Amino acid sequence: MIFTKLETVASAKAKMLEAIKSKGLETECVSITEAFGRTLAEDVKSNENIPGFVRTAMDGYAVKCEDVRGATPENPVKLKFIGEVCMGHVPEFTIEHGTCAYVPTGGMVPEGADGTVIIEKTKTGGDIPSLPADPDAEPIYIELYEQPKPNGNFVPIDEDVKKGEIVLAKGRKLRPQEIGTLASLGRTEVKVYKPLKMAIISTGDELVAIDAPLAPAKVRDINSYSLMGLAQKYGMEITQMSLLEDDEELLEKTVREAMKTADIIAASGGSSVGKKDATARIFDKVSNPGIFVHGISLKPGKPTILGFDDETKTLLVGVPGHPASAMMSFEMVVMEPINEYMTGKSAEESEFVVPAFLTSEAKAKASRDTCITVSLSAGDKPEATPINKKSSAITMLSQADGYIVISAGEVKNAGDMVKVHLF
Amino acid sequence: MIFTKLETVASAKAKMLEAIKSKGLETECVSITEAFGRTLAEDVKSNENIPGFVRTAMDGYAVKCEDVRGATPENPVKLKFIGEVCMGHVPEFTIEHGTCAYVPTGGMVPEGADGTVIIEKTKTGGDIPSLPADPDAEPIYIELYEQPKPNGNFVPIDEDVKKGEIVLAKGRKLRPQEIGTLASLGRTEVKVYKPLKMAIISTGDELVAIDAPLAPAKVRDINSYSLMGLAQKYGMEITQMSLLEDDEELLEKTVREAMKTADIIAASGGSSVGKKDATARIFDKVSNPGIFVHGISLKPGKPTILGFDDETKTLLVGVPGHPASAMMSFEMVVMEPINEYMTGKSAEESEFVVPAFLTSEAKAKASRDTCITVSLSAGDKPEATPINKKSSAITMLSQADGYIVISAGEVKNAGDMVKVHLF
Repeated sequence: MIFTKLETVASAKAKMLEAIKSKGLETECVSITEAFGRTLAEDVKSNENIPGFVRTAMDGYAVKCEDVRGATPENPVKLKFIGEVCMGHVPEFTIEHGTCAYVPTGGMVPEGADGTVIIEKTKTGGDIPSLPADPDAEPIYIELYEQPKPNGNFVPIDEDVKKGEIVLAKGRKLRPQEIGTLASLGRTEVKVYKPLKMAIISTGDELVAIDAPLAPAKVRDINSYSLMGLAQKYGMEITQMSLLEDDEELLEKTVREAMKTADIIAASGGSSVGKKDATARIFDKVSNPGIFVHGISLKPGKPTILGFDDETKTLLVGVPGHPASAMMSFEMVVMEPINEYMTGKSAEESEFVVPAFLTSEAKAKASRDTCITVSLSAGDKPEATPINKKSSAITMLSQADGYIVISAGEVKNAGDMVKVHLF
Repeated sequence: MIFTKLETVASAKAKMLEAIKSKGLETECVSITEAFGRTLAEDVKSNENIPGFVRTAMDGYAVKCEDVRGATPENPVKLKFIGEVCMGHVPEFTIEHGTCAYVPTGGMVPEGADGTVIIEKTKTGGDIPSLPADPDAEPIYIELYEQPKPNGNFVPIDEDVKKGEIVLAKGRKLRPQEIGTLASLGRTEVKVYKPLKMAIISTGDELVAIDAPLAPAKVRDINSYSLMGLAQKYGMEITQMSLLEDDEELLEKTVREAMKTADIIAASGGSSVGKKDATARIFDKVSNPGIFVHGISLKPGKPTILGFDDETKTLLVGVPGHPASAMMSFEMVVMEPINEYMTGKSAEESEFVVPAFLTSEAKAKASRDTCITVSLSAGDKPEATPINKKSSAITMLSQADGYIVISAGEVKNAGDMVKVHLF
């Protein structure tokens, strides 16, 4: 079915999201040393309490609280010093009535102790005695003069993480801090989403391969490579890049073949009306239910096509021919919904959208949401400068950091804060 | 030489930059299909004018201007129609006196023509005639009534890119748009910086490997993995990850061995004073000129160590033991200067720093620049919320999107715009 009504951007994105949901996403387990940049496909819970042992929050002497009852500076209690706890070591002694041991901040509380008297409330202060090597030597006594609250200065065994707690939720993108967190939980492997497989098809008699001489009237195949880059940015795998002449039979054969392995087929056509129709016709012919969006109320990006095949679970995407337009519509209506499905975050909540202040007015068309490419600069505050719309294809591509989206009929003024979708 | 004076952050970064410059960076050529995320090590120039052929900017008829001289709507000039130019094709005819040909916007101007009469200034308007198949058939004439300016509607051969022009400068990070730009210039390979090789060494009797059971009083080796993630984020290659007990001889042997292959050695030690000194002592023993920064006026991050060995050109880095502190000081004084050297952009100009509005007050120490970890959220405007400083190691790691840096003695208030360094 070929539609005649333009879809709104919001509706196109929503329909795309539905298609991805019906497709589903595969998962795999990878080592955390290979997991950087991937997206969690499981809730990561802790199998244990962390730190898992009771520590002290202050430098002081571990005691039985009862032993220090009623102590004052004038009438301190004397307790026998039985040793010092070292960081990272399990104390080799137990606090019995009448004894105490020094524990540094973060040190493990010895068995038998139910409180610590901070060093400021002792007569020895910061000078920690050494336990005599000779067991028959005169014992050392510490004078303490404050009764601590039971377990008052103790840090509980689950202060950092509770057993069973979800520490990293499904959908988290794995950055250095998440890799470190996985290590802290003792996870060597983690379940992530498999990269989606994408096939890229460029059609047009006017296109030449990038390693061929540029004959007059021809242009190089730019879109295959910028779409490849976008796919790589979103962690996808490229299975195929095909550059075809305008030939419907060849296009059909290539699409059918690609559907066998690819999750997504991105076809970028020429700019003439006839060619666009060929992509739509063939997408609709080879797939079922077929095309669900044919034309978007977006400038540029109007000729965007979205389709789906239930049998092979392949997404079919047709993008405009102009390089910047191809990138914007592909990112907006394909990659952003996929990323939202994986991470649970909308595009504006993702790391791919950053705020900046406009340096000059930018207007949408009266009847269509409008994408405007911008370059970013970072001074005291980040600024986005619209790229002159007369810029030619390559200049626009090489200068653009991303684009802003302005709703139909709206105007953004110089100084307004905008959200820049990064390429 | 072991220093006793704390280095300012700015001075530590500047010294680090000097060390990287003296080391230099190696380059390699890679296919543009493998170049995503890499950094250009050459200026990419165009070998040709692009588009390379003269096009028209408007739909119209290509003519010799002289032939239309004096034409008016009342007295149009009749010129013989000799054909239509197709997009992407070189015209197979030449404009001689008395003839004209239709050229669509963007089409190649046929030889002999020096102007186009736009279709609005013709009697045929948008109806483009077909050339009769029979050469003996009655010729078709077009009535034109405006003399165009010579070359007035022509787009020059170098409108998009001039031959010899630098299109992408050395230091550019290759994103999708740059990959597309390289394709447009016919570049199949490109010279980029080789990934730096990094060895990670963690020392401490209290540390256990992430796949070992967590005995009481022990903690898992988090820093090796978060530093690995940071290195991966900056495109580096990990050559080694070693977890050592506190043993100076073993540490020395491991560092000496790592220096043979690694460009950077990152050592993360325990928290006790004695252990820190061991790393500094050994770094200084095995390298020449040795340690050039020992202690930074930064909270946290004070125990950071930087050193360099001239013979092997190895950078030696010692970072604090607390996971968030290790990440902040490593990113700030190591990765940011390296990225600045490669790209020519300061940290704040890079993609790794984003603006946000503080949700609550954040203060620096009176005497030290202070890093505060924050979590980001994206509503109408992006917000950064300081993470409670009492948060334990793993909680802080799993909640932090990055950190802000506040100069000694300064206060940032709720609502202030801050720059968030992303992990």
